[in-house]
Amino acid sequence: MLALVRDEARVRLTDTWPAPTPGPDEVLVRITCAGICGTDLAIADGYAEFTGVLGHEFVGVVETDGPWRGRRVAVGINVGCGACRRCLGPGPEHCARRQVLGIRGRDGGFAEYTAVPARNLHAVPDDVADARAVFAEPLAAALRVAEQIQIRPSLRVAVLGPGRLGSLIAAVLARAGADVTAVGRRESSLAVARRWGLATAAIEDVAGADFDVVVDATGHRDGFARAAAAVRPEGTIVVKSTCGVPAAVDLDSVVVRELRVIGSRCGPMAAALRALHTDGAWRDRLDDLIDARFALADGVAALARAAEPGVRKVLLLP
Amino acid sequence: MLALVRDEARVRLTDTWPAPTPGPDEVLVRITCAGICGTDLAIADGYAEFTGVLGHEFVGVVETDGPWRGRRVAVGINVGCGACRRCLGPGPEHCARRQVLGIRGRDGGFAEYTAVPARNLHAVPDDVADARAVFAEPLAAALRVAEQIQIRPSLRVAVLGPGRLGSLIAAVLARAGADVTAVGRRESSLAVARRWGLATAAIEDVAGADFDVVVDATGHRDGFARAAAAVRPEGTIVVKSTCGVPAAVDLDSVVVRELRVIGSRCGPMAAALRALHTDGAWRDRLDDLIDARFALADGVAALARAAEPGVRKVLLLP
Repeated sequence: MLALVRDEARVRLTDTWPAPTPGPDEVLVRITCAGICGTDLAIADGYAEFTGVLGHEFVGVVETDGPWRGRRVAVGINVGCGACRRCLGPGPEHCARRQVLGIRGRDGGFAEYTAVPARNLHAVPDDVADARAVFAEPLAAALRVAEQIQIRPSLRVAVLGPGRLGSLIAAVLARAGADVTAVGRRESSLAVARRWGLATAAIEDVAGADFDVVVDATGHRDGFARAAAAVRPEGTIVVKSTCGVPAAVDLDSVVVRELRVIGSRCGPMAAALRALHTDGAWRDRLDDLIDARFALADGVAALARAAEPGVRKVLLLP
Repeated sequence: MLALVRDEARVRLTDTWPAPTPGPDEVLVRITCAGICGTDLAIADGYAEFTGVLGHEFVGVVETDGPWRGRRVAVGINVGCGACRRCLGPGPEHCARRQVLGIRGRDGGFAEYTAVPARNLHAVPDDVADARAVFAEPLAAALRVAEQIQIRPSLRVAVLGPGRLGSLIAAVLARAGADVTAVGRRESSLAVARRWGLATAAIEDVAGADFDVVVDATGHRDGFARAAAAVRPEGTIVVKSTCGVPAAVDLDSVVVRELRVIGSRCGPMAAALRALHTDGAWRDRLDDLIDARFALADGVAALARAAEPGVRKVLLLP
C-alpha cells in the first residue's frame, strides 16, 4: 500500500509497504484524512528515533467485520500493554511498555490503512466532517491542559506560540473561562487568535507581564525561558513543546520564584469529539487552521509545506 | 563590631564592621547563635553576587526600647517593600523589591548585631533553647514543602540529599504522614535518617523506583536528573537546590512523562517555632544535626568545616 515512512534516517513515500494484518482485538482502518503535527516534523528530523509509518492524527472507516464495521472513527494513539496498573487504572498514556501510533514502536496513519486495537476506537459523530474530526487528537492534547490546571475566570493565561497546537490550547482555555492572551512572533498567527476574540501580544512584550499561567507551545528550545520570564512568582508553566534536545534551564530561578512546571501530552479523545459535536464554534475555527490539503502521494511535499514558518495544519488525503 | 562578611569576591572576618543603626520600624538584635546553611556556602562561592554580612539563620535578643525589648527572637528573612500587592497579600517572600537578610541587598546575622524590621520578628518560646531556635528558618523551609503539595498517608516520597536541609524535609514529611525514604550517597547521612525511623536507600538504587514525589535537596546540579529518574509518570519533583549554574534539563521527558516540578524556598516561621515548641521529637533530632560549634571569631574556619562532605549543621556563637 501507499505509505509515508521513516527509515534509514529519512522520510520517503513508498507504494510497497505491506498492508497491516490486524491482530487479535484489532481492526483494520481505511484512512480517509490525516493531519500533520509538529511532532511529525520533529520525528522526521530524528526525534524519538522512530521508524515505520508516520502519523498519529487521522480519521478513517473500519473495514473489519464486527460491531465497528463501516463506522467512521478517530483513534487514541497510545497502545498500552493492557495488563499493568496504569493500563487497568487511568489509561495507557503512561504504560511503560506502550506503543504510540506513528511515534513509538507502531505504524501510524500516513498510509492507506492502519491496524489498531478496537479499544482505541472513538466513533466520530455524523455531523463532524473528516477535515474536522482529524483535529480530535490535537484538540484532546489541548484539552489536557484543562485537566491539569484549574481554570478560573480571573486566571491570566498566556499561550506562547499560537500555531497548530497553541491556537487550540488558547481557544480551549478561553472557552473554559480563563483570561487568555495569545503570544506570538508572527502577525499571521496573532490575526487568527484575534479573529477568535482572544487578546494578543508580541513575544518581545510579555517579559515581566506576571501571567498566572504560561503555556509553552512554541516548539522551540528557548520557549521555556520565554515562559519563565512571563510568569509571575508562584505561577505555573505548562510545557507542551518537545524539541529533541535538552534545554538549559535556570532551575535556581524556578526555586527562588517558586514556579510550578507541568509537562503536558495526550488528552481525552472522547471529550474532544464531544466538543467538536456540540460546540459549533469549533467548525469555523478549525477551518481557520487548515493551510493546505495534499494527496498522500505528495506526502513528502506536504511535510515540507507543514515545516514552513507560520504554516498551521496541513491535511493528507489517501 | 565583629562580622563575617563577603566583599571583593571573598569571605573575611572583620572587627571593624559598623554596628547597624535601626531605621524606622526596625529593632536592633544582639545575635546569640547562628547556623550555617548550604546557601551561605554558595554565596561565599559567588552565588547571588551578595556583598555584606553573611547569615540568615540566627536567634538573638532585641535591644531596642519598645514592646520587643529583651525578648528572644527568630527573624523572617524576607524584607519586602511593605506596599506592593505581594507584601500586602501573601507576604514579602516574592516582593519584587525585597531584600533578603544575608542573601540579597541587606546584612545578615553572622555578626554581633543586626537591624531588622519589627514585623519580621518571631518570639522564641522559653522552652526552645538557642541551639534549637536557630533551626526555625531551615525548618520553615522544610515545612514549605508541606504547604505546596498535599501530604497523604499513602504518598511515596523520596528526599534526595538528607543533609542539613534534606533531613529536616524528610522528617517534616514523615511527621505529616507520608511514606518517606531518605536517599543519599553517604552512610553517615542515612544513619541519622534511620535513627529517626525513616526508610533509606542509596542514590544508585532509586532510578525507576516510581516515587510519587521526589524532593531534590542535593544542592548539586545533577540532582534534578536523579529526581526525574526516580519519580513516576505524572509524579512531582520538588526542587530545593540552588546551585548557581543553569542545569541541562531534559524537558522532553518532563513533557512525555507529564511530570510536575515545583520550586520551593522559604516557609512559615511561626509554624516552625510552633513545631519546635510543641513537638518534643524535634529536640533530639536537631541535636543529631549539629556537627560543630565555632566562635564567630573563627567564622572562616566554621565555613570551611560546613563545606566538608557529609557535615550538617555548624553553629556560630558571637
